[in-house]
Amino acid sequence: MAIKRINPGPRLSQAVVYGDTVYVAGQVASDTSADAAGQTRQILTTIDSLLAQGGSDKSRILWANVWLADMSDYNAMNGEWESWIPKGETPARATVEAKLAAPQYKVEIACVAARAAARAAKRSAPRAAKKGGKKRRR
Amino acid sequence: MAIKRINPGPRLSQAVVYGDTVYVAGQVASDTSADAAGQTRQILTTIDSLLAQGGSDKSRILWANVWLADMSDYNAMNGEWESWIPKGETPARATVEAKLAAPQYKVEIACVAARAAARAAKRSAPRAAKKGGKKRRR
Amino acid sequence: MAIKRINPGPRLSQAVVYGDTVYVAGQVASDTSADAAGQTRQILTTIDSLLAQGGSDKSRILWANVWLADMSDYNAMNGEWESWIPKGETPARATVEAKLAAPQYKVEIACVAARAAARAAKRSAPRAAKKGGKKRRR
Repeated sequence: MAIKRINPGPRLSQAVVYGDTVYVAGQVASDTSADAAGQTRQILTTIDSLLAQGGSDKSRILWANVWLADMSDYNAMNGEWESWIPKGETPARATVEAKLAAPQYKVEIACVAARAAARAAKRSAPRAAKKGGKKRRR
Repeated sequence: MAIKRINPGPRLSQAVVYGDTVYVAGQVASDTSADAAGQTRQILTTIDSLLAQGGSDKSRILWANVWLADMSDYNAMNGEWESWIPKGETPARATVEAKLAAPQYKVEIACVAARAAARAAKRSAPRAAKKGGKKRRR
Repeated sequence: MAIKRINPGPRLSQAVVYGDTVYVAGQVASDTSADAAGQTRQILTTIDSLLAQGGSDKSRILWANVWLADMSDYNAMNGEWESWIPKGETPARATVEAKLAAPQYKVEIACVAARAAARAAKRSAPRAAKKGGKKRRR
């Protein structure tokens, strides 16, 4: 299976697609004057974009890791997260406190997502054909 | 490939199945009066249950991440872990110290596991059928 | 799909292969008298070896998690990382500070990689064949 790297830099790629899975690098805010809620919103917007480039979207996240510079921002982060993530489509997730790469970062989020079901569509075609019976030509 | 979410909540699902892989969210103890060993035992019992719901079990864990609120609980956690994980079936694992979502949590464990080989079984069935034709006995 | 465990110990395996994916456990330095750059070099050499045993290599890393005992070692770690990782083949990555299993460890790195394209090779064979013979119909 081919590997597709999205926004590759000298250190890391912002996302990597492999087969049906998209790995999104730890994302931080670009405008770090924002509070934890604001940084979370920025991060989730970036993740939306990276998932789209990887052929996925926020309804297909399988796993997420959230790091907070200060665990007292837990509710602020979760408020934004819950209004963003579709009901019933929540990923497995772990949230811990950790000092991040620079002191102005309050939140970092990485995730793994499933690509949209292009493959499944291909696979279901032959099955549909099967059901069709002997007289189908296609 | 379909995504199956186990115990989905507003923030996270306790586990997510995608194809042949099960992602288990960071698990913490429910009875937090327990010490690190006791919390680890509770967590591993929960993971057993989630893996079962996801069609896997502890002999098929691929990756685990352990967070300890205090690294001095390393041996206590490992004692429980080693008596739980089947010999020769140990996953890749990383253990680091991190402040967890609430101060009463001493241990948090997340993992990724392989589903048991149900799919292979399903896939081979139609093939067997095909070969057999109308007069199949098997 | 079969699971192959590399260097399995009582607690963890150094790497686990599942299908087309290799999970590498959190690696630390063996000679802990080294500084962060030296520890990073040791770790990357170990990862090279584990990836090779798993049928992969550093050009096929999908995801990496770096933990630093002290975030002030960020540049030292990155210097080694950037000279090691092939340009254009950088994985998604997250780097956070965390106290590690023992105080002498300054760096820990885990990763997930894609196996080399044994499968793709098999699949491309028929395609190659197609191009070849003029008289083939299929």
